[in-house]
Amino acid sequence: MRSYSLREVAQLIDGELHGDEFYVVNGLASLQSAEKHHISFIANPVYKKYLSTTAAGAVLINAALADDFLGNKLIVAKPYEAYAKLTEVFATRILPLPAIHPDATVSEKAKIGNNISIGPKAVISDGVVLGDNVVIGAGCYLGADTEIGAHTELMPNVTVYHGIKIGGRCLLHSGCVIGADGFGFAPTSDGWLKIHQLGGVIIGDRVEIGANTCIDRGALEDTVIEDGVIIDNLVQIAHNVKIGRNTAIAGHTAIAGSTVIGSQCTIAGAVGIVGHLEIADKVHITAMSLVTSSITQAGSYSSGTAMTNTKDWRKNAARFRQLDEMANRLLRLEREKKL
Amino acid sequence: MRSYSLREVAQLIDGELHGDEFYVVNGLASLQSAEKHHISFIANPVYKKYLSTTAAGAVLINAALADDFLGNKLIVAKPYEAYAKLTEVFATRILPLPAIHPDATVSEKAKIGNNISIGPKAVISDGVVLGDNVVIGAGCYLGADTEIGAHTELMPNVTVYHGIKIGGRCLLHSGCVIGADGFGFAPTSDGWLKIHQLGGVIIGDRVEIGANTCIDRGALEDTVIEDGVIIDNLVQIAHNVKIGRNTAIAGHTAIAGSTVIGSQCTIAGAVGIVGHLEIADKVHITAMSLVTSSITQAGSYSSGTAMTNTKDWRKNAARFRQLDEMANRLLRLEREKKL
Amino acid sequence: MRSYSLREVAQLIDGELHGDEFYVVNGLASLQSAEKHHISFIANPVYKKYLSTTAAGAVLINAALADDFLGNKLIVAKPYEAYAKLTEVFATRILPLPAIHPDATVSEKAKIGNNISIGPKAVISDGVVLGDNVVIGAGCYLGADTEIGAHTELMPNVTVYHGIKIGGRCLLHSGCVIGADGFGFAPTSDGWLKIHQLGGVIIGDRVEIGANTCIDRGALEDTVIEDGVIIDNLVQIAHNVKIGRNTAIAGHTAIAGSTVIGSQCTIAGAVGIVGHLEIADKVHITAMSLVTSSITQAGSYSSGTAMTNTKDWRKNAARFRQLDEMANRLLRLEREKKL
Repeated sequence: MRSYSLREVAQLIDGELHGDEFYVVNGLASLQSAEKHHISFIANPVYKKYLSTTAAGAVLINAALADDFLGNKLIVAKPYEAYAKLTEVFATRILPLPAIHPDATVSEKAKIGNNISIGPKAVISDGVVLGDNVVIGAGCYLGADTEIGAHTELMPNVTVYHGIKIGGRCLLHSGCVIGADGFGFAPTSDGWLKIHQLGGVIIGDRVEIGANTCIDRGALEDTVIEDGVIIDNLVQIAHNVKIGRNTAIAGHTAIAGSTVIGSQCTIAGAVGIVGHLEIADKVHITAMSLVTSSITQAGSYSSGTAMTNTKDWRKNAARFRQLDEMANRLLRLEREKKL
Repeated sequence: MRSYSLREVAQLIDGELHGDEFYVVNGLASLQSAEKHHISFIANPVYKKYLSTTAAGAVLINAALADDFLGNKLIVAKPYEAYAKLTEVFATRILPLPAIHPDATVSEKAKIGNNISIGPKAVISDGVVLGDNVVIGAGCYLGADTEIGAHTELMPNVTVYHGIKIGGRCLLHSGCVIGADGFGFAPTSDGWLKIHQLGGVIIGDRVEIGANTCIDRGALEDTVIEDGVIIDNLVQIAHNVKIGRNTAIAGHTAIAGSTVIGSQCTIAGAVGIVGHLEIADKVHITAMSLVTSSITQAGSYSSGTAMTNTKDWRKNAARFRQLDEMANRLLRLEREKKL
Repeated sequence: MRSYSLREVAQLIDGELHGDEFYVVNGLASLQSAEKHHISFIANPVYKKYLSTTAAGAVLINAALADDFLGNKLIVAKPYEAYAKLTEVFATRILPLPAIHPDATVSEKAKIGNNISIGPKAVISDGVVLGDNVVIGAGCYLGADTEIGAHTELMPNVTVYHGIKIGGRCLLHSGCVIGADGFGFAPTSDGWLKIHQLGGVIIGDRVEIGANTCIDRGALEDTVIEDGVIIDNLVQIAHNVKIGRNTAIAGHTAIAGSTVIGSQCTIAGAVGIVGHLEIADKVHITAMSLVTSSITQAGSYSSGTAMTNTKDWRKNAARFRQLDEMANRLLRLEREKKL
């Protein structure tokens, strides 16, 4: 476990230290659970009440709240951002050594950069190109001619099909599948005729992809994930989708084929977006909404109904089936009234 | 295939045998499809009609229905529970021998209990602790310092990150990912800044986790799954969620960060639960509901609308957009009436 | 990259060539992005506007539109079907050589057909039967006694449990899990008692299964997927479900236990279907609908609400909770009017 004096911490996050510069901390914790060897933070004024009781050895705090805490403090403009920086400093995961494990299967026709780590049971196919400082976890599979940019890490058991391009400083979590066939079939009198998926997937820099998420390859052109996109677990991204820069997509969301999503959008969890739509920049979709038409204006959008107890819900849901008829009856009453 | 006399079966399930104690059965089947070498059961009176025609060699039945069946029968208080016990007796899967396969990669710094089975291509990292009688399937990955309790079984291709604690007598199905990073990022003017996830995952005893389910590690503290929880396939459990004892979660459900769910809840399939909520004990959520606020009382809760044909649905769904306006117009009519 | 003269292409798709029979093409592209070495297609008249500007070397076109394009053309009755056929011709993926990789673990008790490819790190258990020309990708796991029909391909990191039967000419994408335990438990006073799942999974011929999709084994009898079914990514198919011939299921859909779905159905993405239902042939379910009762007639069915901006949605969703009461008030007004 690494230890830092508050003086060192202040330098790491460019904070203004008030208190004992030699005080040593070795971890991060919330105000409620912190002990004296922890550094904590307050990012939301609703937690102000915990400032008087926290045992934290020091607190990241902004100028507006600084007077409310009497202990060691580091004043920063954005405490949450400072906390995020410190999570990297205090991360305890031991990175694998730069070495190719003898139990990996690596093609002689792959181009391997410097300082690479390849875990046991990983399979690197012909023509793969790995940039410097890439980490390929145990059991990962990289198909032929796939390229991975510098400093990108694949956690164990990631599958990347052939001909995929992944940028630098990305993080792919276990079980994600990049480049499987898009769901394309032509209906015929004999059943479905497969449309072989000839496009690829292009993933930019600093993209994070969650566990068991799927990003399909394009039909003719590529599926594209731009720089800085973050994608949670179990997300489905169909063929030829394009996701704009710095958009965030929460868990269990599904985006159908050829839809283009702008930059800086936030798509909440379990959202469905049908195919061939265009979603503008800075659109926010709330949880479990279904998007069936393009969105041209930034803003927040929703569908669905509010939860109630099941007994009342049954009655209301039954009435939903009569809603158009109810609207017509209401209109009739209003008209009769006017006569 | 194992065979048992009805006398032996009666002992296994503590049942009262009426009929031929030497009759031999070698499998289980439903009343409709049973043959004479099968034992069957009736757990729900709606299937009473099949009692007169079933070919089953014997039936598990409760006292109330016993007179309706004339063949060999085993009278028990809870036929469904007795059937569940017999599924273990008649299970045909051959458990792997307690041995470490030569094609596994096992760290010398791992602590391996007695009677362990580790399949081919499994990777056991430094500091892993495996209790007695643990079974690790082919291709599983266990990260550094992860602990697995006695009698727990991981089916093939399970991924467990570093520092995770899993209790005893658990069953984890293929493709599940335990301990991937929670979806935590701080927004900055340059895009998303990763919040490294420093917490872990703690899973109790007798927990079953479905195929391709994801349980993320906590941000600072741990994600917690208590004893006896059962989780189906493709479920997303985000960072710092807590699931109480004996709660059941069906397939494709997603639970967002820091939500605390009580014990003995039943969450149906494809449910969405947003973050930072508290759900009381013994709450039931019906299929595909969205839960956006805490639930303080036991009971059944729902959201969504009832299915109709698409033509009518389109009309009703369009009216939903006018619902607040309709409510105001209705109120106006009522008021005008009173004047 | 393979090249074909238009004369050869015409023979491959049985088309009527108008133009230069010696013109050579080496790939497929959409009208908008095609270059002169590409062949393109028009399947939908809305894209007619691109015919005058496309740079494609030739176009697949039907007789009705043929006069609208002046360049090389191949007249066919169904251009989309012809395009689908050509995607196979121009597919660039290099199939693995028929060989068992030395890093695979193959039981001596498995029966291996002719012309088989088994990738590195694949595990083939005792009693497995592989038909001729089967391709097993890297890292796949096949449990004991599983059977795979001729010409079926498993992409890397597929998991198939014991005793599963998969037909011929199927394609299974990475991360899918076939034959995990159905979610069956008996409630007892001590918690959930596992019902061991003694059934299997039977998959017909020409079935495609998407990445990270799960198909559970049956409780006593089998889960059944009939010939020609196509299933997208991240789909959950629970125990004892039956899916009829040529039905298509889009991504993120969940089908609960024992539901029987007819043939030639199209289930859109993120649909939920509860257990123990019967769905007729040729039923279409629109995206993110919840199906809670059996459907006896072919046709299109839906549930859910239409998207609006979140502010309006909040008001309407709140009114949904009053819908039954509103309906009663409306009826009262109508009755009072009549008096």
